Amino acid sequence: MERVGFIGLGIMGKPMAKNIMKSGYDLVVYNRSQTSVQELIKEGAEAAQSPKEVAQKVDVLVTMLPDSPDVKKVLLGVDGAIEGLSKGKMVIDMSSISPIVARELDVTLQDKGIRMMDAPVSGGESGAIEGTLAIMVGANESDYELYRKLLLAMGKSVHRVGDVGSGNVAKLVNQSIVALNIAAISEAFLLGAKSGVDPRSIYEAISGGLAGSNALNAKFPMMTDNNFMAGFTLELHKKDLDNVLKNAQSLNVEMPLTSMVTEFVEDLIKSGEAKSDHSALLKYFENLSSSKLIR
Amino acid sequence: MERVGFIGLGIMGKPMAKNIMKSGYDLVVYNRSQTSVQELIKEGAEAAQSPKEVAQKVDVLVTMLPDSPDVKKVLLGVDGAIEGLSKGKMVIDMSSISPIVARELDVTLQDKGIRMMDAPVSGGESGAIEGTLAIMVGANESDYELYRKLLLAMGKSVHRVGDVGSGNVAKLVNQSIVALNIAAISEAFLLGAKSGVDPRSIYEAISGGLAGSNALNAKFPMMTDNNFMAGFTLELHKKDLDNVLKNAQSLNVEMPLTSMVTEFVEDLIKSGEAKSDHSALLKYFENLSSSKLIR
Repeated sequence: MERVGFIGLGIMGKPMAKNIMKSGYDLVVYNRSQTSVQELIKEGAEAAQSPKEVAQKVDVLVTMLPDSPDVKKVLLGVDGAIEGLSKGKMVIDMSSISPIVARELDVTLQDKGIRMMDAPVSGGESGAIEGTLAIMVGANESDYELYRKLLLAMGKSVHRVGDVGSGNVAKLVNQSIVALNIAAISEAFLLGAKSGVDPRSIYEAISGGLAGSNALNAKFPMMTDNNFMAGFTLELHKKDLDNVLKNAQSLNVEMPLTSMVTEFVEDLIKSGEAKSDHSALLKYFENLSSSKLIR
Repeated sequence: MERVGFIGLGIMGKPMAKNIMKSGYDLVVYNRSQTSVQELIKEGAEAAQSPKEVAQKVDVLVTMLPDSPDVKKVLLGVDGAIEGLSKGKMVIDMSSISPIVARELDVTLQDKGIRMMDAPVSGGESGAIEGTLAIMVGANESDYELYRKLLLAMGKSVHRVGDVGSGNVAKLVNQSIVALNIAAISEAFLLGAKSGVDPRSIYEAISGGLAGSNALNAKFPMMTDNNFMAGFTLELHKKDLDNVLKNAQSLNVEMPLTSMVTEFVEDLIKSGEAKSDHSALLKYFENLSSSKLIR
């Protein structure tokens, strides 16, 4: 079985790395903060001192980092993975980054004969722990077939979208729709509440119809319980929405709704909600109309 | 069994009236256009010459009309139903109208001892034919219990939302969310397409996750097939969105996203798409970015 490297043991990365070990792979890890590294060592992982050292020791390297600059630094920076990766080795970047950056990285790595795929995920911390993530893969078909088994150690729904970069294209589409669906729920249900009707009764009446959505079922209970513990933070969603808009701009795609909601998210972050779940978008609309969903 | 009156034998009303007869009720109908009336007579209905005459002959009167002014005219106008309804009789208005008008009508009818509930539907023509409509009911609890059986002749999911008017409040919330979800799908998937990725592959990868919705599953195939045959027309959705915004304004609720999408719908109607399905919202975004979802 291949030796797997894992860089980025954050909220998502740590449980994903554990699930790789549970599937029987030998794991070599690197992370800036050492607490997670110690935890993984106890469960049988080997620790390395730099991305370069991880890369030297493994056949396939998984990265799970916050944003494009982090991935660039870990792969191409001082003591970066590229220095330790020999020809034919594979990098699977599971971070949610700009597809433009993913394609640039692919070109840079290809110059040294190193293969890459982008495979961002959705499903949050619970999906990472339970190994039920949805994984959107950008890879050529043969690489996808070769590494599908490794991806299935971390996720339940694994789909190849297209070539390298297209995993992150799918993720951007996903994040735009999710933000807009949460905003729609907030805006519309506030009208219902202000009309004097119990929003929970409206939910019962409409959630089975055309207005029904996974976002409605997942987020509406958080809104009515006034519980905005992440989940997925507004701060991270803002990062994804910025990538959406940057990509849209470079492709001359107009996104008036996503632009508007991104401003709302920015406003909320400025008012101290960075670490709240993205369902806290409700608060923007509550402030706007000086009204509460649940009184 | 009660004798039921039915006024408004349009695309939705005609199959709903037929389903009432199929459940064993005697039916008296009135409609401006006579073609539908003849069709109903053949199946055993009795025809009346005015809303007043229908009202005189039945115990409960169902109305299914395009908008608030139509309902007002049929109930309160010359030879209107109010002239034929005696004390204790029930009006079930299943039209999608402003909840403010629904409440006003209730007050007017109550003055004459006539009961009313609002019970707008969703599910479109196919739901009306198959008797699988979702029905959102605004009524007091005892009226709801009394007429639930009649409503179940037309719908599958029947929910009491609250008192009279709240059926239409739920419908407005529903229509706002549906419009925004369709707009979100359009805007986000166009970014995916312009990025050079097959939108259908993105759909496969994300529809099971947090971006998944009933609108996505129902409307995305229409968008990729370039088939915008209604379904539910942009014209009718515009009418509902206008009611949403009118109600929001009267309650000081800000709805920036719904306002924006309503403008887009208006623009499409002006360019000749009034009778297209509301999934044709895609075309607004395609024009905006001079780009096609499927090339």
